[in-house]
Amino acid sequence: MKWSKTNGLIAATLTPFHQDGSINLDIIGRYVDHLLSIGITQVFVNGTAGEHASLTVEEREAIAERWIKEGKGKLTRIIIQVGTLNLPDSQRLAAHAEAIGADGISVITPCYYATSDISSLVDYCAAVAHSAPKTPFMYYHFPAITHATFRLTDWLLAAEKKIPTLIGAKCTCLDLYDACDAANLFGGRFDVPVGADFQQLGAMAMGLPGAIGISFSLLGKAQNRMVQAYNSGDIATAQREQFKVQEFWNASGSNAGLHPMIASFKAIMKLNGLDIGSPRLPIKPLDDAKVAELSAKLKAMDFSKWIQ
Amino acid sequence: MKWSKTNGLIAATLTPFHQDGSINLDIIGRYVDHLLSIGITQVFVNGTAGEHASLTVEEREAIAERWIKEGKGKLTRIIIQVGTLNLPDSQRLAAHAEAIGADGISVITPCYYATSDISSLVDYCAAVAHSAPKTPFMYYHFPAITHATFRLTDWLLAAEKKIPTLIGAKCTCLDLYDACDAANLFGGRFDVPVGADFQQLGAMAMGLPGAIGISFSLLGKAQNRMVQAYNSGDIATAQREQFKVQEFWNASGSNAGLHPMIASFKAIMKLNGLDIGSPRLPIKPLDDAKVAELSAKLKAMDFSKWIQ
Amino acid sequence: MKWSKTNGLIAATLTPFHQDGSINLDIIGRYVDHLLSIGITQVFVNGTAGEHASLTVEEREAIAERWIKEGKGKLTRIIIQVGTLNLPDSQRLAAHAEAIGADGISVITPCYYATSDISSLVDYCAAVAHSAPKTPFMYYHFPAITHATFRLTDWLLAAEKKIPTLIGAKCTCLDLYDACDAANLFGGRFDVPVGADFQQLGAMAMGLPGAIGISFSLLGKAQNRMVQAYNSGDIATAQREQFKVQEFWNASGSNAGLHPMIASFKAIMKLNGLDIGSPRLPIKPLDDAKVAELSAKLKAMDFSKWIQ
Amino acid sequence: MKWSKTNGLIAATLTPFHQDGSINLDIIGRYVDHLLSIGITQVFVNGTAGEHASLTVEEREAIAERWIKEGKGKLTRIIIQVGTLNLPDSQRLAAHAEAIGADGISVITPCYYATSDISSLVDYCAAVAHSAPKTPFMYYHFPAITHATFRLTDWLLAAEKKIPTLIGAKCTCLDLYDACDAANLFGGRFDVPVGADFQQLGAMAMGLPGAIGISFSLLGKAQNRMVQAYNSGDIATAQREQFKVQEFWNASGSNAGLHPMIASFKAIMKLNGLDIGSPRLPIKPLDDAKVAELSAKLKAMDFSKWIQ
Repeated sequence: MKWSKTNGLIAATLTPFHQDGSINLDIIGRYVDHLLSIGITQVFVNGTAGEHASLTVEEREAIAERWIKEGKGKLTRIIIQVGTLNLPDSQRLAAHAEAIGADGISVITPCYYATSDISSLVDYCAAVAHSAPKTPFMYYHFPAITHATFRLTDWLLAAEKKIPTLIGAKCTCLDLYDACDAANLFGGRFDVPVGADFQQLGAMAMGLPGAIGISFSLLGKAQNRMVQAYNSGDIATAQREQFKVQEFWNASGSNAGLHPMIASFKAIMKLNGLDIGSPRLPIKPLDDAKVAELSAKLKAMDFSKWIQ
Repeated sequence: MKWSKTNGLIAATLTPFHQDGSINLDIIGRYVDHLLSIGITQVFVNGTAGEHASLTVEEREAIAERWIKEGKGKLTRIIIQVGTLNLPDSQRLAAHAEAIGADGISVITPCYYATSDISSLVDYCAAVAHSAPKTPFMYYHFPAITHATFRLTDWLLAAEKKIPTLIGAKCTCLDLYDACDAANLFGGRFDVPVGADFQQLGAMAMGLPGAIGISFSLLGKAQNRMVQAYNSGDIATAQREQFKVQEFWNASGSNAGLHPMIASFKAIMKLNGLDIGSPRLPIKPLDDAKVAELSAKLKAMDFSKWIQ
Repeated sequence: MKWSKTNGLIAATLTPFHQDGSINLDIIGRYVDHLLSIGITQVFVNGTAGEHASLTVEEREAIAERWIKEGKGKLTRIIIQVGTLNLPDSQRLAAHAEAIGADGISVITPCYYATSDISSLVDYCAAVAHSAPKTPFMYYHFPAITHATFRLTDWLLAAEKKIPTLIGAKCTCLDLYDACDAANLFGGRFDVPVGADFQQLGAMAMGLPGAIGISFSLLGKAQNRMVQAYNSGDIATAQREQFKVQEFWNASGSNAGLHPMIASFKAIMKLNGLDIGSPRLPIKPLDDAKVAELSAKLKAMDFSKWIQ
Repeated sequence: MKWSKTNGLIAATLTPFHQDGSINLDIIGRYVDHLLSIGITQVFVNGTAGEHASLTVEEREAIAERWIKEGKGKLTRIIIQVGTLNLPDSQRLAAHAEAIGADGISVITPCYYATSDISSLVDYCAAVAHSAPKTPFMYYHFPAITHATFRLTDWLLAAEKKIPTLIGAKCTCLDLYDACDAANLFGGRFDVPVGADFQQLGAMAMGLPGAIGISFSLLGKAQNRMVQAYNSGDIATAQREQFKVQEFWNASGSNAGLHPMIASFKAIMKLNGLDIGSPRLPIKPLDDAKVAELSAKLKAMDFSKWIQ
């Protein structure tokens, strides 16, 4: 088992659906090529952006398989999110991910029987990790959803001895202080990519070079320009790109919650030429009037040119 | 499709597990007999007390089938909770419940892509209800978990025309005002059993005679004494039983959240002679010291005698 | 120091303002007479309904004095709420209330440096109580505002030895189980009036005969009819009045938060003949369109006749 | 009225108390000299660090006066926080601050009658600002306390036309995206110092060069080293100092809420030679055991040397 620390952008992929509501596996090949064309070579599949919680276990397996099949050899890293609400399904998905050759698995903890008891959640994660004993394990910290409101740092301290495959955590949280502490634990042993596209420059400055985000399926080139500017010491350029990213989030209405975020991104993907369909209930798609409004706002910010 | 309004107690059943963590179907027959022996004839299966979110779809089907098989002809009402995080599985469980002859289905809305947008959740529930077109549909209102923080009354107003099988809602909430308003809608058309065992006398006085609760698997006789006293106009006796119920909740530590509640109830069921095992992760069982403490507290309140 | 347990209704009075925003002391005499005319003889002054937090210490003293001056001999109980954000002002108001002859004081704990540490809040309250050593002390439990999210019962257990003047608590909370436990502590030593007008019948059935509410300045007669029906064993009539109370809360929009509640009640007081002015910022008054709408809704429910 | 944008560190001063609980004005002169000695020339008085909400209006006036008297000519900027729960006191303090020559005022909105209605809070702030018509007005955005959970950006957009003296906002929030958007409004018109000492490097990289923090009374030199390193393009050194700052926050237990934060800082100030006393209730001071533990932790991180 090997893991190199995340550097740069990992796209949290969206799940494509057909018009009849079934998953659209066949478009995943084109999705891979699209990502490569905008400079994205790493993916996080069946995460929050991927509507994992709205999918059956069978659908999640099929999606994971297709990403591996289409992406292997082209993408440099494919992480499969295998957390469900229940332990047996999470274990099944973990074993499946290992069997199909995932580079890593990630696990979000249950949000129904939610708890901030670290011990319970470490035990739960250890049991999932045990089903994929050769695959790097990335804890998925997302307290706004899981109500597991401890610091990531404290979870990692408790889990370190109990999960042999633990390599770090996806930190979906505004608290850069905690993410940074987590990344510095044990002399910097853990990989802590952050999930906060709209303040990524701040994260990088705090020593967090990895990011996992929904927006990279669209903004790969722009965000990479920011990363490169930052890495080359050109903060002024990095800030200009960062501000543009924020302008995009504002224009797209994606900062108002998971529902509008996912609905907007799917609409923009379609406007942008890759029709991955609409979200599944309980998330509703944007109606025609909102798509028109969104389209006008993107035009006003010269979106098509900017993302080239 | 017919439905008579809930009167009295519906046990929210706990899910039995073997020591190896697998579900224990074979004990369900004895569970049915136990309930009958304490005066409980109605059940709500695969609800929160039943750790539904910690079960796979296949396990939920097997549990529902066994309750129907063992309970049909003995129990007067068997409601199956079919809500999952995703629409296809919820639809599958709804169709299954109808196929096996459930008296009603209940649906909790997704807590991952949580929303307070009533329209989204009505559409979601309508799609589930459509898969069981001949089975009474009971919305499961539990805002502390689902973060669907509107009033139940408003949801019912929005859903009334869109879900032909809608017969009411389980209201798991301290807000008796809302529950009472909901029960009075359209001249009292909806059945609104409440899920708040520890303030049930208050609910009854507010015109809400039905209750769905985890504690009835243990306290059936005691709670029925309270109901009967209230119904016969003997408020003083009803209050004495109500206070005793509260004493029990305090002694059992069950008022501290779902984890301690489910863990305690399972421990007490075992102490009381029906070994339905421990909870599944992320809920941890009580350790031996806590079981001993619990046992002592129950003895101090003369629990065994009281529940006869 | 003597205290008899609250039985029936205590009006949480609204603070009258002139059009220029200054407090209107001169109308308090009429307010007293109005209350007596609708069967209300007990008041809770400078509480949440009274916009205490929007008043200066000097204004609070002037208001308390006027209620005592106008009410003494007419009203049977005048409780002054003396909690502020800071200890010296709370102590000053406590001493002042004792000096002017208040029947009791009540203290809400600070919501800025909010805490759920019971020990800190008991020490704080003990220090305030010490400034009014001969006046009954009623803790004001309102966790939705103070974020002091422990059970009232636990606070009383911790405070019992430390506050010699402690006689109970105003419990502004939907949790009747906790309120009832609190009232049963030490063999029923504490007075626990509840602040939940819209589910008062439930509270009464749970053994809680006292209530403190904003609505009693308007609904005194109607709510007293409910109390009398309940006390005489006529639950059916009590329920009809209870449902009518709920209909009023719905019509008035008062269930949507403190701002609309206080703004609506002030508008209705004026419509009803006692012009106590508008709320103070940050609470905005209803605009004319909303007052017209409110007036129409009240007419539709035959409000004027009902409250006679 | 003039205002230059904040650059660098503003100390959110702690309020000194005597052992008897009264405010200690006489030590403020030494406090000023201490700040100057560690390179801090700007202060924010009577803010959250200053326990403003635990002070009477008279105390707040006395403290503000003393800071102005001792600091004028030595400090380059003195901002007085004048927000209270009520409008008249906030207006009084605003007028007082202007009269004594404050460089700016800041206003936190009421947390008792809390609201997320922007219009109400803009009106409230405009009324306060009106009492200090010649003094720059800085909105104090602290949604975790005020429950005013809109974006700062939206508040500024609504307030811009209504408050002539508005120069920006103190943004006490982890959301750098919002703070950055706010700072970019109207071509960068507003000053938006952030209140998040423990992730300040991230804020700076996001284009936010100003900071207001409790820790600068202790860490002025260290945090200035970080600022200077960042400004000179030496990110590696800046990160080392940033990590050390985080190590300090962890060691001091100051990340566990306002109570432990203020109690710890006061204890450390005393350990460090400037005895400004203990906090006022409801905040409790650290007990002796905790002070000893804290002292040991600081020693272990070579605190005394680091802050030189």
